[in-house]
Amino acid sequence: MISFKEKLAGYIGYTEKALEKYNQHTAENEAQKNLIEAMNYSLEAGGKRIRPALVYGFCEALGGDLRKAEAPAAAIEMIHTFSLIHDDLPAMDDDDYRRGKPSCHKAYGEAMAILAGDALSVLPFEIIADDTALTAEQKVKIISVLAKAVGKDGMIGGQVIDMENEERDDVDADNLRNMYRCKTGQLIAVSCVMGGICAGASDLVLGIAAEYGFRLGLAFQIIDDILDVTSTTEELGKPVGSDEEENKTTFVTLYGVERAREIADEVTAEAMECLDKIENSSFLRELTEMLLRRKK
Amino acid sequence: MISFKEKLAGYIGYTEKALEKYNQHTAENEAQKNLIEAMNYSLEAGGKRIRPALVYGFCEALGGDLRKAEAPAAAIEMIHTFSLIHDDLPAMDDDDYRRGKPSCHKAYGEAMAILAGDALSVLPFEIIADDTALTAEQKVKIISVLAKAVGKDGMIGGQVIDMENEERDDVDADNLRNMYRCKTGQLIAVSCVMGGICAGASDLVLGIAAEYGFRLGLAFQIIDDILDVTSTTEELGKPVGSDEEENKTTFVTLYGVERAREIADEVTAEAMECLDKIENSSFLRELTEMLLRRKK
Repeated sequence: MISFKEKLAGYIGYTEKALEKYNQHTAENEAQKNLIEAMNYSLEAGGKRIRPALVYGFCEALGGDLRKAEAPAAAIEMIHTFSLIHDDLPAMDDDDYRRGKPSCHKAYGEAMAILAGDALSVLPFEIIADDTALTAEQKVKIISVLAKAVGKDGMIGGQVIDMENEERDDVDADNLRNMYRCKTGQLIAVSCVMGGICAGASDLVLGIAAEYGFRLGLAFQIIDDILDVTSTTEELGKPVGSDEEENKTTFVTLYGVERAREIADEVTAEAMECLDKIENSSFLRELTEMLLRRKK
Repeated sequence: MISFKEKLAGYIGYTEKALEKYNQHTAENEAQKNLIEAMNYSLEAGGKRIRPALVYGFCEALGGDLRKAEAPAAAIEMIHTFSLIHDDLPAMDDDDYRRGKPSCHKAYGEAMAILAGDALSVLPFEIIADDTALTAEQKVKIISVLAKAVGKDGMIGGQVIDMENEERDDVDADNLRNMYRCKTGQLIAVSCVMGGICAGASDLVLGIAAEYGFRLGLAFQIIDDILDVTSTTEELGKPVGSDEEENKTTFVTLYGVERAREIADEVTAEAMECLDKIENSSFLRELTEMLLRRKK
């Protein structure tokens, strides 16, 4: 039997290979060499590849052919990378570093970073449309849920709420939950849903996959808030205390560390309950545990 | 019989209505009100709506149901608008005005303009995937050609070549043609191709539609180059002589005005030859004439 760690490493391996395949520099696009390099620079910066692992994990748990998950798994990582590149821009969060490396605009200039992000926002739809394992119906369903999760009512909408909250001093729990749901939850939920679509799951099961994803996303974000005040810069690999410095409303400022941890546990328990309705959920359970016990 | 002008006005009218329908502000996305407003601000800024007219024009010429063209026509205008918003950003062309109005980042701030452009880069794929008139096969084909026309080997790739050319003093005719083909040609060609897909045209006919589009795009761009030196700021509605000021290589700097005009005529004649192979091409012929005899 394959262990959790082996399975996770396998999914991450498939993802790395697919990302490389989908964004190759060829003789035909010699003139766009630097653009492709900038895209790959950020794609290769690593990260935990959680979202692709969820696509593969749900596809396999629901009895799907893993080959079908290849394009959606790479697609969600491209979208995540596009959002990080644009988030780091001077006009946005103005971050010079990302995962210990200079951010895309620091390495390639601001104009190239904007364009690299733009290119990574459309490539996902191309690779899904051109995939040879998915049916036309599966492709259309995946593109529909993915575009919604990214767009004005999804991740991008969440970034707008986050940005506008910086100017407000009346951010309450409802606002914060909605912001997290859009900004982080949507991409995580759609990863689970896309895995389910690859496996031909029913709409009922897709709904459960989404509910699980939203809860995982929320718990993930609450733990982020907690680590920002309880961790050290060495452990976290990025500056701690930045939320307080930026005067951000978080689960910690609203509830305190102790109650925030309780809420994270409650939300995690709800996520696990969703998994009760998924057949072979042992990998997904271990992934959930791992993400919520993380120290960075 | 409906005149050319009536037909064009009809197509533009459908496009305006569809754009409004697809990007409504509702009670559910109250929190994203400003984002949707910024998107609509730029979508409503007008422009000639040439690309949607080509989608409708090809769909109708090839005997398709115009209702099928609705989503792709709105989609291509959203993509065009997204590219204008990001092009105008300080890190890119740094333009404070667009079509006589403050550009998106001047009206809504730089961060919101980046996000409004981002949202307009993914909404097109959502509305095509969710359309109720197109078949799943048509949707997949449209999304595939559209994403390619926009991405690293299409419009965005062309913007990178354009940007990098600014640093070079050895831009030759091949480079310039390739840049125009990517930056302008791809979106125009894919408009024609999408219209053909809506009408269920054969791959042979889609190829002809693309060839026509690339030639129209090139002729359009050469005329842009000519107008930049022969027009007045009043006629053009934007500053003339900007190419020379920015030391850009254009068809005029490479060939002079007279020869550039000859090349535009040759390319236009080739475009018209492509239309010989399209059945009911009278609207498309008049549109071609109109675009190439334009003074702005």
